[in-house]
Amino acid sequence: MKLATYRNGRPDGCLMVVSRDLASAVDVSALAPDLLHAIQGWERLAPQLQQISDALNEGCATGAIVFEPARCMAPLPRTFQWCDASAFLNHGRLMERAFNTAPIPDFESVPVMYQGAADDFLGPHDAVPLPDEALGIDFEGEFGVIVGSVAMGTPPSRALEAVRLLVQLNDWSLRALGPREMKSGFGFLQAKPSTSFAPVAITPDELGDAWRDGRVHLDLEVEWNGQAFGHPNGGEMNFGFGELIAHAARTRRLSAGTVIGSGTVSNVSRDAGSACIAERRVIEIIDHGEPRTAFMRFGDRVRMRARASGGELPFGIIEQQVVCAGVPGA
Amino acid sequence: MKLATYRNGRPDGCLMVVSRDLASAVDVSALAPDLLHAIQGWERLAPQLQQISDALNEGCATGAIVFEPARCMAPLPRTFQWCDASAFLNHGRLMERAFNTAPIPDFESVPVMYQGAADDFLGPHDAVPLPDEALGIDFEGEFGVIVGSVAMGTPPSRALEAVRLLVQLNDWSLRALGPREMKSGFGFLQAKPSTSFAPVAITPDELGDAWRDGRVHLDLEVEWNGQAFGHPNGGEMNFGFGELIAHAARTRRLSAGTVIGSGTVSNVSRDAGSACIAERRVIEIIDHGEPRTAFMRFGDRVRMRARASGGELPFGIIEQQVVCAGVPGA
Repeated sequence: MKLATYRNGRPDGCLMVVSRDLASAVDVSALAPDLLHAIQGWERLAPQLQQISDALNEGCATGAIVFEPARCMAPLPRTFQWCDASAFLNHGRLMERAFNTAPIPDFESVPVMYQGAADDFLGPHDAVPLPDEALGIDFEGEFGVIVGSVAMGTPPSRALEAVRLLVQLNDWSLRALGPREMKSGFGFLQAKPSTSFAPVAITPDELGDAWRDGRVHLDLEVEWNGQAFGHPNGGEMNFGFGELIAHAARTRRLSAGTVIGSGTVSNVSRDAGSACIAERRVIEIIDHGEPRTAFMRFGDRVRMRARASGGELPFGIIEQQVVCAGVPGA
Repeated sequence: MKLATYRNGRPDGCLMVVSRDLASAVDVSALAPDLLHAIQGWERLAPQLQQISDALNEGCATGAIVFEPARCMAPLPRTFQWCDASAFLNHGRLMERAFNTAPIPDFESVPVMYQGAADDFLGPHDAVPLPDEALGIDFEGEFGVIVGSVAMGTPPSRALEAVRLLVQLNDWSLRALGPREMKSGFGFLQAKPSTSFAPVAITPDELGDAWRDGRVHLDLEVEWNGQAFGHPNGGEMNFGFGELIAHAARTRRLSAGTVIGSGTVSNVSRDAGSACIAERRVIEIIDHGEPRTAFMRFGDRVRMRARASGGELPFGIIEQQVVCAGVPGA
């Protein structure tokens, strides 16, 4: 089952069931007004949504319309918690060199994870307003999960049972602000503006065996201004989502609708390229003694899509343009 | 105007208007089901809620009942964003010594702030379930603000206009986990379990001139197991809430319902005592070469109340007991 959220003037939008081929959709807001409601009432609502999904995929759903990704908000336009890990250790190791920060304690045995802002997620085609090009504008291609409620202390082996939906996302980052916030010890805040999401959140069965071991085993294709930038595979996560959910729930319960991110998808093999600019820059420093790729400028575009072995794009496409935020009240 | 949230079996509870003397209350859920709705529709709803508040304070409100703090959830039981600063530099300087961490860059000119979990706030008399006494269980007495929407880049001078309500809170902390998370650069996550709130959120006018310069100029009285622990004054904040809101909004817009915290209230004068155990412990290290006060044990209680010059308690009282969380599914 694939779920999307159409813009309707309300903060949480309108819930849509989308066909597997992303060609058609049905407004299911009479059943659940928005995805947050659906996640909170999942046991009761998922079977009904699945029936509509089945009918839609068979071409016999009542009220089916053409699916238009441009009408999409993030599948969850806002939620109560967003925790993003850095579960690809290759990325973490490169970023330590990029930021020239001290080695992270227990890096190979304990996941690192920051608490992000969940109040204002961006849709797949929304403009990305940012205040200043000098802040080092960068993308970070990631996968994530949306979970039901998770009890405090749930072990990794049980935590995966809480996964309701998988998502593909872009964790926008401002690299000029990252090192200072890391050195403060309080973690990322200004360095992490609103996060963007691909149009559809999908149940794990949509990926077949590309969802296994709590990992999304798909290439994440990233293009910057129309040029291929990288296509790392999500299967190389050093911690699976079970470990990440359990990490987040060690000292607190997680409420239904919590989103947990993988961190930047990153492969040890350089053939895959990168899913963020900072990583390419540190590779350039290693190879050439200096970075050769600048960060993004206003007007730049980024496109991200995970690709299945048959060529399909299970989550649809993120395609966004960075714009100047302007001055409030001006 | 004072607002509280009664438990009603739903995650967001039932909105109540409470009298100034905390003696009586009116269920206003017909007007706004919960505080999140009220904050989101503040311009329209606040005048109507204020009318009910006025009638309640004059003893002529329809449907008035005795106010029972034990029925309260947090005023906002969950919201979409919670950012907590460390705006009392005296606390920050002591914590650097307590944690033996590197000096924070630009500490006196740029606020430090971490993104917290907003999905599961605790009410003033809720038990506080935590997994292990060995984690260094500590309280942190703070003040906070609940804001309306704030545009990206709003300056401090304008940011204060977004303040809708003031709150008093306890930012529960697990000190054994703090240093590792600070050294990771990703900031607090497991070290910050669910935050607790005093029963009523209040409009700034409720404090008279004790709300000025974007600061709550009240003593915050803290008792641990019935013993006085500290009574630092909130007026000594080195950054006011205007600066803190602007800091949070530098690279993102803040959605209505965002909560911004002051960080542990802390005064340079030792006569005021402390609002957290970690601070007392580092003072003991300075004075005696070693800490003499242990962290909390299961069964321990903490009480916090801000006191106005006339003796009133504008936010009511937080009074909680720490308990063992137990094993999920056991």
